[in-house]
Amino acid sequence: MRSDIPSLMTQRQLDAIVVYGDTDTSSDLVYLTRGAHLERAMYLYPRQGDPVLYVSALERENALAAGVQVRLWSEQPLQRYLQETQGDMLAARVAQWRDIFAEHGVQGRVGFYGLQDMGYAYRLLSQLAASIPELTVVGEGSPNVFTQARETKDAEELAMMQAVGRATTQVIAQVFDFLSSHHGRGDYLVRADGQPLSIGEVKAFIRLELARRNLEETHGHIFSQGRDAGVPHNAGRPEMPLRLGQPIIFDIFPRDRATGYFHDITRTFFLGYAPDALAQKWEDVKQVFDQVMAAIRVGEPGGTFQQMTCDLFEAMGYPTVCSDPQTTVGYIHSLGHGVGLDIHEAPRLSTVGRQTPLRPGHVVSVEPGLYFPDQGWGVRIEDTIAFQEDGSIRNLSQFPYDMVLPVK
Amino acid sequence: MRSDIPSLMTQRQLDAIVVYGDTDTSSDLVYLTRGAHLERAMYLYPRQGDPVLYVSALERENALAAGVQVRLWSEQPLQRYLQETQGDMLAARVAQWRDIFAEHGVQGRVGFYGLQDMGYAYRLLSQLAASIPELTVVGEGSPNVFTQARETKDAEELAMMQAVGRATTQVIAQVFDFLSSHHGRGDYLVRADGQPLSIGEVKAFIRLELARRNLEETHGHIFSQGRDAGVPHNAGRPEMPLRLGQPIIFDIFPRDRATGYFHDITRTFFLGYAPDALAQKWEDVKQVFDQVMAAIRVGEPGGTFQQMTCDLFEAMGYPTVCSDPQTTVGYIHSLGHGVGLDIHEAPRLSTVGRQTPLRPGHVVSVEPGLYFPDQGWGVRIEDTIAFQEDGSIRNLSQFPYDMVLPVK
Repeated sequence: MRSDIPSLMTQRQLDAIVVYGDTDTSSDLVYLTRGAHLERAMYLYPRQGDPVLYVSALERENALAAGVQVRLWSEQPLQRYLQETQGDMLAARVAQWRDIFAEHGVQGRVGFYGLQDMGYAYRLLSQLAASIPELTVVGEGSPNVFTQARETKDAEELAMMQAVGRATTQVIAQVFDFLSSHHGRGDYLVRADGQPLSIGEVKAFIRLELARRNLEETHGHIFSQGRDAGVPHNAGRPEMPLRLGQPIIFDIFPRDRATGYFHDITRTFFLGYAPDALAQKWEDVKQVFDQVMAAIRVGEPGGTFQQMTCDLFEAMGYPTVCSDPQTTVGYIHSLGHGVGLDIHEAPRLSTVGRQTPLRPGHVVSVEPGLYFPDQGWGVRIEDTIAFQEDGSIRNLSQFPYDMVLPVK
Repeated sequence: MRSDIPSLMTQRQLDAIVVYGDTDTSSDLVYLTRGAHLERAMYLYPRQGDPVLYVSALERENALAAGVQVRLWSEQPLQRYLQETQGDMLAARVAQWRDIFAEHGVQGRVGFYGLQDMGYAYRLLSQLAASIPELTVVGEGSPNVFTQARETKDAEELAMMQAVGRATTQVIAQVFDFLSSHHGRGDYLVRADGQPLSIGEVKAFIRLELARRNLEETHGHIFSQGRDAGVPHNAGRPEMPLRLGQPIIFDIFPRDRATGYFHDITRTFFLGYAPDALAQKWEDVKQVFDQVMAAIRVGEPGGTFQQMTCDLFEAMGYPTVCSDPQTTVGYIHSLGHGVGLDIHEAPRLSTVGRQTPLRPGHVVSVEPGLYFPDQGWGVRIEDTIAFQEDGSIRNLSQFPYDMVLPVK
């Protein structure tokens, strides 16, 4: 939680943290500035003393949302430093930061965060370290201060995450109504003019319904059919006509523009009817989903439930990534991931990485799936769930799991 | 241009470049992978030898769009390296990359690109440099290989940028029709039910029209009125009712989801009528806009036209950022910026930074403006223009500049 940041800094012996970036891409900056829209900002957070936010004069009003002291870059204009450095932009930036850090007592062990070009970050931080003797640049691996703070959501965040969950399921409901309002003819779902409805038309409808709710798709969505559903990140081919009796994976993971929080939910369904063989595959995934959802709980590491998922699928005879990390068929990904201001964040429900126990405040996706593109199918079912203070689960993805969507 | 990359590498004595990131945020990766949607990818580009793209197995089909050899992370699974490194994630990543680099002859002076957390990039690249003796990590300042390559657009890119320009102006036309279809009553623009139309309702309409054209707002838009228009990055307050006779700044800068290219255009207008004093301010900005548009040309550095803009505004009696870098009223920003796969890229039409001449292939915004929030107004007019091969200008923002939008 946000309130953990000072103690996480103490644990890491960090005297200050500095976040530099924009709020469109740097979710750590969003976290600290509470929804302010900023294009180039620096948040200084000394362990002792008050946080300060540097922004462009153009964004001085946007910055007020952060609720901390706001200062302007133009107070230390880069142009002045450029004269000193004979036009060396990097040296000018270092000199500017040196003065800003000195004014706010940012020294000692300082951690740096925010998204920047890799090479630029390396060069800038190397030069900072070399130029400011009283500064030790700390580059954190994973997990860093923010990974750990953001991993547990506070009550305010949970309320925002419930809201984006509700809005997202409303979009799914609208899309299902839209599909159901069409007629099946032969193998296809057809429009009023008798022509097949295409995946592209459904995608356009999805985008409109998202826009109506102020949800944005920073990572797109997946609406894929048949063999394409068998390739997990295949987003679906727009030109493809919708067919009856084929598995369709609809995986949607929008961000609420107002709060910055994501939701993640997947339904797999068949238009009109499900052929017996494929219905069995769907039931297999649903059964694993139900068993994992019944078992998952605080106190156990996420990896336990990845292993459980693999074990269940293997008992059904499917290959899994646990016994063969290179398999491209069967169960080929991890069970889930944290969801918050990033669509993928801590904790991970996987065998790789940290194996700390699930705990109250964690919000994770649970998404078992099976993929056999050469057999023309894939199935995934996913909800996003929150572990509440008493350890109980609140499902943020309140939407039915129907296998077949009837059509006219 | 993309075809300049090998010679830019030679100029910088780079033996290889490595781009690591996702295509949602790392525009350099989008540039190389030509619209493939990838969540975690690494593009290896040895100066000698063929490029290789590493992706997750889940995205192996998305990766085909890049048109280069595709390899899977699972061929060198991180889990295997984690066992070797006793769970040290960073050391495992370094070991994995070491093997991948060795296989593809990535050694010598290697530049790294793509958006990552600053501190993580610093740590990972420091550790890479320390662990691989035959590798020299090069962190480029600005401009880097990509800044320079992307600064000039080729014919294919210009066609994509014309397309997003057309779609964007269609959105503005729809918004203006929507506003004009309302009645003025007293000071307000009102809906059929007699209640004032709010900025929030207009914003919702804008989002729908963008979604209809597959345009996304990765950075939002600005629709601000009166004193808010006087604060350049104030996006506009949704709860505010629309008033007649007030300057409204409508600045829209969406990205075409299909191609990744941005457009940037601003109109300032008054609903119903413009009071004389404010009309004069609008005319002042329009006059500067027209003069700069008539003067701007290849062969001169962008800074020349920033200075020209300042001189013109100062001759009219307005303060400017050229003579007072800390002014918060008058002309307080730069004249424009390159537009492409990022909304702000090279070249800059500003006094800060590189002063190389404008040249064919450059696509820039031209956006003079005046801001006096305490007097309740701001005005900005902006088009995005391309310099064609013969040096002539193609205006990508084909939309009229009417000062007053009539209402019913």
